[in-house]
Amino acid sequence: MAYKFDKSMETFARAAKVIPQGIYGHLTPAITVPGLYPYFVERAKGSHFWDVDGNEYIDYMCAYGPMILGYAHDKVDEAFMKQAKKGTCVTIASPLMVKLAERLVEINDCADWAIFAKNGADTTSMAILLARAYNRRKKIVLAEGGYHGTQPWCTSNMAGVTPEDRRNVLFIPWGDLGAFRRVVEENKDEIAGVMLTPYHHPTFADQVLPEPGYWSGMREICDRNDIVLIVDDVRAGWRLDIKGSAHYFGFRPDLACYCKAIANGYSISALVGTEKMRIAASKIFATGSYWFNSPEMAAALACIDEMEKIDVPSIVKERGLSLTNGLKELATSHGLKVTISGPPAIPFMTFSNENNFMRSQLFCAECAKMGVFFNPHHNWFMSAAHTEEDIKKTLDKADKAFKEVKKHFGD
Amino acid sequence: MAYKFDKSMETFARAAKVIPQGIYGHLTPAITVPGLYPYFVERAKGSHFWDVDGNEYIDYMCAYGPMILGYAHDKVDEAFMKQAKKGTCVTIASPLMVKLAERLVEINDCADWAIFAKNGADTTSMAILLARAYNRRKKIVLAEGGYHGTQPWCTSNMAGVTPEDRRNVLFIPWGDLGAFRRVVEENKDEIAGVMLTPYHHPTFADQVLPEPGYWSGMREICDRNDIVLIVDDVRAGWRLDIKGSAHYFGFRPDLACYCKAIANGYSISALVGTEKMRIAASKIFATGSYWFNSPEMAAALACIDEMEKIDVPSIVKERGLSLTNGLKELATSHGLKVTISGPPAIPFMTFSNENNFMRSQLFCAECAKMGVFFNPHHNWFMSAAHTEEDIKKTLDKADKAFKEVKKHFGD
Repeated sequence: MAYKFDKSMETFARAAKVIPQGIYGHLTPAITVPGLYPYFVERAKGSHFWDVDGNEYIDYMCAYGPMILGYAHDKVDEAFMKQAKKGTCVTIASPLMVKLAERLVEINDCADWAIFAKNGADTTSMAILLARAYNRRKKIVLAEGGYHGTQPWCTSNMAGVTPEDRRNVLFIPWGDLGAFRRVVEENKDEIAGVMLTPYHHPTFADQVLPEPGYWSGMREICDRNDIVLIVDDVRAGWRLDIKGSAHYFGFRPDLACYCKAIANGYSISALVGTEKMRIAASKIFATGSYWFNSPEMAAALACIDEMEKIDVPSIVKERGLSLTNGLKELATSHGLKVTISGPPAIPFMTFSNENNFMRSQLFCAECAKMGVFFNPHHNWFMSAAHTEEDIKKTLDKADKAFKEVKKHFGD
Repeated sequence: MAYKFDKSMETFARAAKVIPQGIYGHLTPAITVPGLYPYFVERAKGSHFWDVDGNEYIDYMCAYGPMILGYAHDKVDEAFMKQAKKGTCVTIASPLMVKLAERLVEINDCADWAIFAKNGADTTSMAILLARAYNRRKKIVLAEGGYHGTQPWCTSNMAGVTPEDRRNVLFIPWGDLGAFRRVVEENKDEIAGVMLTPYHHPTFADQVLPEPGYWSGMREICDRNDIVLIVDDVRAGWRLDIKGSAHYFGFRPDLACYCKAIANGYSISALVGTEKMRIAASKIFATGSYWFNSPEMAAALACIDEMEKIDVPSIVKERGLSLTNGLKELATSHGLKVTISGPPAIPFMTFSNENNFMRSQLFCAECAKMGVFFNPHHNWFMSAAHTEEDIKKTLDKADKAFKEVKKHFGD
């Protein structure tokens, strides 16, 4: 029987009175399919969540990345709560900060030091500041369609953004080595840093993996021109390689940004960097009210231990392959053409013969009302909590959803 | 017997290898007195914390504001943990977000809506963006020596900051109505907003309360020129008035920023605003990985309930007066001149006959080694957990510390 979203809609009506847009940012109803999705969650456990109407979902968004071991994960929660009993935000720092920094330095391929914050954007903004403090240049190169947060220097929404906020930001296509070479030549000795995601994961588009030679080429151009190479690993981090996505793709950036999956959903992010960047990192003033909260650090330590112990990247890759291979087969059996893009651990499916996402929206809305949560416009995430049983159930529902797509669109 | 900080120093030596500056931001040793203070905390409870060497402190910094009900407060912690069992960061929003927004709209004098984030600076930066989205102007007025975070548009540390980051920021002295009038005239129809703290609380200086007529004058100039009046209540919020510090000083801003004490140390901040600002607030894109985490919202709801129930502003004012009246009397009895500035709930003491903080540093370092934690350079904070017994003990230690100041400096 199809799910109903009455309480979600009632709660949204209340929300609309006291919150601009009702729900803002990346959870706005506009990012899925308004009216055909649940808006509010009651509880979550493992790979599932239950909305306020009592409907259960197998969740392939994983909170847009943070959930990697499963919702309400006992080991991570216990680590957080044990530390919270000793205080959350205190007047001086906790030695757990040192332990977590030591752990990142030990585990991450480009970390000689670490700074902790709360948001992914705290670390991407700090990385920009640090690149400029390092070589005293102003310009920053970003990829078109890349996402590094909602700050004026990088947001795609221009409301309230001034031309000055963007004056020193240059955009090139992701994965285009020639374009980077040209922008460097045209801005000789003016580029402080280049910030890119380890592979391209734009919203409303297929994902793109790097071509062979791309990252070694980027590294070489940066070295030759003293440009700081920054990897924004906020979204992909921990799912491809415990040592960092840069290690997975075979290169060493100067700075790397982590957030999301680092603590299975607790609020902490980390900027790590190489020895070369340490003095610059000591010059900037970076802080926030809760940046030293130790329970989040305890949660990160527990999450990293568990990810390493069970080898999360292998699990999420395997489960992602089960899901995407299954979806491809089903689509073909219905005479539909789909494109699966990105790494299996962070997969995305689009319909190959459309640009307007109409088939995707119908497919995902059909899945949602049968208890499978996919986003039609944004890449998905696998977690270690997804079971083969989850995927079997998912494919069963997906079969019905593909049938609806076929019925409505013909191909 | 004087406290020793051996384990703090050992831990700091480890920290220096894996963290730039060892400890960065507002907890850097440089903000107290390097070598004469503890650097790392083991646990905290009520108004006290214990450092890694086992030394106990009565804490007058309250984590630089967030701790308002006492460290490891049972009711707030239970609310957080109960909700965390239902998931921390989940794929869709929690109805607790709506409940918290409704609560702020009910309680806060200028809140017709609310947006939640993680850092105080998330809300100050969002307020700037929103002011610009509202009237499509570029310039922002700030007060000299004001603190709104470590973003390039407002930081006092210029490492990595470009001239473009500051091109649209104008500075005036806090509390100077004439200066604001002049800057508005000189930048006719170009000023988007003015952001000020409700009273002036600079670091390394005495605090300044508003003169009568200051805020009504500011409101009038803003209204006449369609300038968005933004109050940064991150530091002072909840200690002066549950309805907001602006209400305490008798005016209504267009936007107000909250963080710190809103959830007794759990990581959440809120931007609230009036009806006039709602459409602009719907235009901006503001979000972050953990902005929808519901346990922090549960903690904020529990903290607000408790603050209202026990009337926190009355308690912290009373305890602050006990402390500062006691300190003044003691100083006089030793023939020393001190200045107590700011509201009693957020007091600060300096020695009146010095600008270099040498007496303050000696006084505070003496207190630290006897188990009382004051910062010589930054305002202090009172909490509802501070008891009259705490203050009695504190004044006993302060008496000895003043004696040392007298001995070393003579006056």
